[in-house]
Amino acid sequence: MISFTSFSWFGRFAGLVMIGAVVFAGSANCLQAAQISDDTKKCLSCHNKLTPGIVADWKKSRHSEISPSEAMQKSENEKRISATEFPGFSDKAVGCAECHMMNPDKHKDTFKHYGNQVHIIVTPNDCNECHPVEEKQFSKNLMANAHANLQDNAVYRTMVNSVNSFQPFDDKNPTYREADDLTNADSCLACHGTKVEVRDLKARKTAMGETKFPVLSGWPNQGVGRINPDGSRGACTACHTRHHFSIEVARKPYTCAQCHKGPDVPAYPVYMVSKHGNIFASINKQRNFDAVPWVVGRDFTAPTCAACHISLVTNKNGAIVAERSHQMNDRLPWRIFGLIYAHPHPKSPDTTVIRNKAGLPLPTDLTGELAEAFLITAEEQKARLEKMQELCTSCHSRQWVDGHFTKLDHTIENTNAITLEATKILFSAWEKGLAKGIAQGENIFDEAIEKKWTEQWLFYGNSTRFASAMGGADYGVFANGRWHQSKNLQEMKDYLKFLKTTQLEN
Amino acid sequence: MISFTSFSWFGRFAGLVMIGAVVFAGSANCLQAAQISDDTKKCLSCHNKLTPGIVADWKKSRHSEISPSEAMQKSENEKRISATEFPGFSDKAVGCAECHMMNPDKHKDTFKHYGNQVHIIVTPNDCNECHPVEEKQFSKNLMANAHANLQDNAVYRTMVNSVNSFQPFDDKNPTYREADDLTNADSCLACHGTKVEVRDLKARKTAMGETKFPVLSGWPNQGVGRINPDGSRGACTACHTRHHFSIEVARKPYTCAQCHKGPDVPAYPVYMVSKHGNIFASINKQRNFDAVPWVVGRDFTAPTCAACHISLVTNKNGAIVAERSHQMNDRLPWRIFGLIYAHPHPKSPDTTVIRNKAGLPLPTDLTGELAEAFLITAEEQKARLEKMQELCTSCHSRQWVDGHFTKLDHTIENTNAITLEATKILFSAWEKGLAKGIAQGENIFDEAIEKKWTEQWLFYGNSTRFASAMGGADYGVFANGRWHQSKNLQEMKDYLKFLKTTQLEN
Amino acid sequence: MISFTSFSWFGRFAGLVMIGAVVFAGSANCLQAAQISDDTKKCLSCHNKLTPGIVADWKKSRHSEISPSEAMQKSENEKRISATEFPGFSDKAVGCAECHMMNPDKHKDTFKHYGNQVHIIVTPNDCNECHPVEEKQFSKNLMANAHANLQDNAVYRTMVNSVNSFQPFDDKNPTYREADDLTNADSCLACHGTKVEVRDLKARKTAMGETKFPVLSGWPNQGVGRINPDGSRGACTACHTRHHFSIEVARKPYTCAQCHKGPDVPAYPVYMVSKHGNIFASINKQRNFDAVPWVVGRDFTAPTCAACHISLVTNKNGAIVAERSHQMNDRLPWRIFGLIYAHPHPKSPDTTVIRNKAGLPLPTDLTGELAEAFLITAEEQKARLEKMQELCTSCHSRQWVDGHFTKLDHTIENTNAITLEATKILFSAWEKGLAKGIAQGENIFDEAIEKKWTEQWLFYGNSTRFASAMGGADYGVFANGRWHQSKNLQEMKDYLKFLKTTQLEN
Repeated sequence: MISFTSFSWFGRFAGLVMIGAVVFAGSANCLQAAQISDDTKKCLSCHNKLTPGIVADWKKSRHSEISPSEAMQKSENEKRISATEFPGFSDKAVGCAECHMMNPDKHKDTFKHYGNQVHIIVTPNDCNECHPVEEKQFSKNLMANAHANLQDNAVYRTMVNSVNSFQPFDDKNPTYREADDLTNADSCLACHGTKVEVRDLKARKTAMGETKFPVLSGWPNQGVGRINPDGSRGACTACHTRHHFSIEVARKPYTCAQCHKGPDVPAYPVYMVSKHGNIFASINKQRNFDAVPWVVGRDFTAPTCAACHISLVTNKNGAIVAERSHQMNDRLPWRIFGLIYAHPHPKSPDTTVIRNKAGLPLPTDLTGELAEAFLITAEEQKARLEKMQELCTSCHSRQWVDGHFTKLDHTIENTNAITLEATKILFSAWEKGLAKGIAQGENIFDEAIEKKWTEQWLFYGNSTRFASAMGGADYGVFANGRWHQSKNLQEMKDYLKFLKTTQLEN
Repeated sequence: MISFTSFSWFGRFAGLVMIGAVVFAGSANCLQAAQISDDTKKCLSCHNKLTPGIVADWKKSRHSEISPSEAMQKSENEKRISATEFPGFSDKAVGCAECHMMNPDKHKDTFKHYGNQVHIIVTPNDCNECHPVEEKQFSKNLMANAHANLQDNAVYRTMVNSVNSFQPFDDKNPTYREADDLTNADSCLACHGTKVEVRDLKARKTAMGETKFPVLSGWPNQGVGRINPDGSRGACTACHTRHHFSIEVARKPYTCAQCHKGPDVPAYPVYMVSKHGNIFASINKQRNFDAVPWVVGRDFTAPTCAACHISLVTNKNGAIVAERSHQMNDRLPWRIFGLIYAHPHPKSPDTTVIRNKAGLPLPTDLTGELAEAFLITAEEQKARLEKMQELCTSCHSRQWVDGHFTKLDHTIENTNAITLEATKILFSAWEKGLAKGIAQGENIFDEAIEKKWTEQWLFYGNSTRFASAMGGADYGVFANGRWHQSKNLQEMKDYLKFLKTTQLEN
Repeated sequence: MISFTSFSWFGRFAGLVMIGAVVFAGSANCLQAAQISDDTKKCLSCHNKLTPGIVADWKKSRHSEISPSEAMQKSENEKRISATEFPGFSDKAVGCAECHMMNPDKHKDTFKHYGNQVHIIVTPNDCNECHPVEEKQFSKNLMANAHANLQDNAVYRTMVNSVNSFQPFDDKNPTYREADDLTNADSCLACHGTKVEVRDLKARKTAMGETKFPVLSGWPNQGVGRINPDGSRGACTACHTRHHFSIEVARKPYTCAQCHKGPDVPAYPVYMVSKHGNIFASINKQRNFDAVPWVVGRDFTAPTCAACHISLVTNKNGAIVAERSHQMNDRLPWRIFGLIYAHPHPKSPDTTVIRNKAGLPLPTDLTGELAEAFLITAEEQKARLEKMQELCTSCHSRQWVDGHFTKLDHTIENTNAITLEATKILFSAWEKGLAKGIAQGENIFDEAIEKKWTEQWLFYGNSTRFASAMGGADYGVFANGRWHQSKNLQEMKDYLKFLKTTQLEN
């Protein structure tokens, strides 16, 4: 909130002067357009011309077509709204004003804009007005903490720095410095989310005359763990793309691919070589990505990411196969990527609280021993697995499903064991003074042999596990998996020898 | 076959009690649903609820819509069935029972399931009942032998082991051990096919009460060269996806991409940067992927994988441009991937019979000399090329086509020559004792320099040839081709020096 | 032109005998088919059977549906033709003859074909008859000079040679030789364009009897900078795919991906992980890719490559958001790829005229200093940026847009600085005699450490910048960006040590 006295939603609605008539074109869907509030009409009166793209997207959205009160009359499984009390604007379309003028007091980015108290960034806390269940679930999602879990973790912050900071040739500890904010925002934090802060309130010439706007740092950003000017965490728009908020887009794997395509988290490329991905790619136009609930056998068969991890899935009789989840890992027993060893999921989405035996904020020791107190139990793992398997058994036999997960468990064990061998090589390098790591209080990600070690698990171990978990074997062998695990390990052994020879010689 | 007395198809059909009524919803296609057998009705009575996804897929399939006897009345080019004699169920839809109860005596995975003799895995030998021509063609396909050609080839088995086995840091011959079955199944054999064997018959609680099921090893698996419990080789479902068996899916490149996307066999990524792939990706929704025969100019212009390698293609007058082929390599003169050097296709799909001069089961010596007795002749190569070119000339002039294949021939020669240089470096390493290979009776794929040599041909040589063969040049330069060929060769030279220096020093 | 006396379009049209009747099937579009010239009817009379695929494509094309004179009656924004004078065939469809018989005197590949003067390769100079504005714009495009800028640049030609030439193990300067024409054509020149020359006129048996055809070198090729037999530069068909010439295909990113997918120019993979790419991939079927003008908010919202770089974009009122541009870089201030350092765009599309301080045909020194006289000014950069930003602001606020480009500018600066550090390592190698480069008058791309240096900018610096420019962060970190920048730099440092140790030892 930048300066104004706040007043209630109701009060604000009453005091407005409507500026100009807005012609509202009918949408392609069968739904009638809902009535537009005067505040939103006022927004549209300019933005229809100034930013026609986003207005067009909104006009295609369900938000423009149905009011919260209408939405709340749907049956339990059909509802896309989870509020139990009507919001103030319950009989109007969910337009510009309804979201960008929500909770003005909480928003440090609120500013006076042609008479209204508007904020730039709509946050999970705003969406919460109509979607409180989803917002709460998401707050338990590791992704809501993606910024903090990276930047406030002392070990991972050194990885960020070693990747993003400037590295002079003649600097002996080249990457052990703080990376600058703009580079971080353009790199890791593009997905993990920046911290968006209000720096100033500045006037700028616009097509409508000179106007003051808050000046934001860390903006633009749509990272899933963004820290917002109202203190909330996350960006719903990472997946529910502005201003169409199309559930079809969110359910298609291209949305996840925005952040899950690289070798560190190769969910998308693995999916695309799986049988599921093949069917999706070949005939998704014959499927229905808009239906709520999402009925297996009617709307789709082969799942997308959303079908297994997020969406409310029912069968044709309306029986629930999987509850909607914005926590996501409540169906996942193992965390198979991002860390040195695959491990049971952490209990808290805030992973900065974890301490391993060595006192580091990591879920395992460097040797793989679990920081058990911070991780879910074997019972909880079993319960989560069973939730996931409910989905599998809509199409697959019990033996099929069990066989699949037996292979995955074996692969987790096997890749962890290989990572341990790579870690022993790194330990040897540190012991022999061929690299500087933990013992020397140094960054463990900055030297070449440390980067080779990092790729061993961050790329190859992870990828092998993803390929196993999602049935995309082609990715897990030569594309980015077992071949590279095996090759990298042999190269690390030779690299150790080369470093030793070079040390002796110089 | 687990235990029961077998009896004929006819007998089984007669003796059944129909359990419950099955409501069968009409499909989206114009075809009338065919009559469903009593046995299949019985299956559906439970599985409609238990596994609604696969039932929904089957209901969309042609198998549910047309009986074999109707299918056999189509004109020669329109037929999708190649049987000349009616199968026992010829007037019924091809449902659950028709396939999963076929040939019960031959199947070691047959078990008694609610009164019926059912087997889990439908095999090429079962599909053969209606599709004998395709089954026979496929048996001549290298892919039908993909399991055996890998696992029963002494040289390639050491590659599998070096990729999939566990590799301790302190083991001097780290990868020279047998990889375990679960890892192999999750890795190479996911595409090459596992050997599926019946281990036991065990009771399990199900939603319908306690039931006994065969316990299978190597399952689930849909690898193209799977060894089945009835002794047959292959899995039609690798491409003809259960239980929709959509020809549209099989004809789209995403199906091939399941196993042909990695750097070792990059058919899909090469296709996608080719002009053909561009046209497919941009406007495939304007094309017809369901038509049989597939008419060039009417149903499609730019080909997919299937158009060039498999499908029956005719022109608008019904003249055949290419016969349907499930052998596939009957249009391919050269085998351009997977082996050290590109070479004429082997005569037999069972490549374990091949012996090069050194007595190894490889189609060339390590120096590239051909094991000619086991490979097709130049005349046969010419005949195969001409078959392929028939397809090209539907859109391209003779000069265009000749120019294209002249480049490919040159690229084959050129990449083979570069591989030979890399092999000389490896020979030098073996001679100098910097690595242990053939002469020492050791695995030739396990040490770092051997893995670099392997990538020289398995990744870069192969990829360069694929890019040339399919007109996807972008993939063949910087993505995964000539740049890497050239870089890897220079790095191998330096690596040899580093190894030598290290050896001298230690 | 091979031999014949040329005569005017009009004359040729008059003297023809029509051979056979051609049945012309109606197209899927609403347009009426335009009248077909007698010459084209003659072509079709054979080619309808001989090459049915391309005839089918043409029949679907706008060229078959509308005559130039009809096209010229459209409103200014709707016109796809830019000629101001009617071409000779103005009332006929633009068929085979209209293009392949255009400008016969200029074409060295013109030959007598069943009584007509036909040439094989239709060039920008032919397309110019109806599309002169586009042809002129394209002549200012760097791509029109893609062949010459590579092959006639002394430095870059050594890169081509080091990638494409044969490299014996025992040759001390292995890659410093001229690569052969067929390999170049199959590699770099597939995209950059070959030089197509007429070698001979030779008879060949065809389905229609023996016929003489020109024999072409460098053919087939559809590279964007192809040197044509009429002396013109470029191939419109690189993007406007024969013979459909579908604007939908040209506007979809798969067209650009043909040459812009590899790690050197990763526009496509970056786009596909951007929010724009996600929206395109998820719901492009709901968008209109055929409309001219292309109306933001009506036909599309999230842009494809074409929307930002090429197409005429208007808003719903017909006001122009961006002019059509076939120059493309008139909206681009920076050239962010292909060269060692990102730099302001060159003034001339012919970059062979550039000389840096050291006299090399490069836009910067090896240390990054700009060859300013040959590059656009800061003012021009600003003007180009503003043109681009006009497009952005159709959907994004000014602050969003400014924030985006601030990050890009920082990333350009940052990646250039990192490249400089890598270059210092290379200088050190040259100074110490561990590699041979500029000072020794040697190829700077052929030794392993030089190739590592090349990847530093050609792959990792470029990719990081693309990811920043197009909002595809996932590609710019672990897929092919900052992680690799950082890792490669550390590896170069170690590599330098290994080379030195090896030199001392041997």
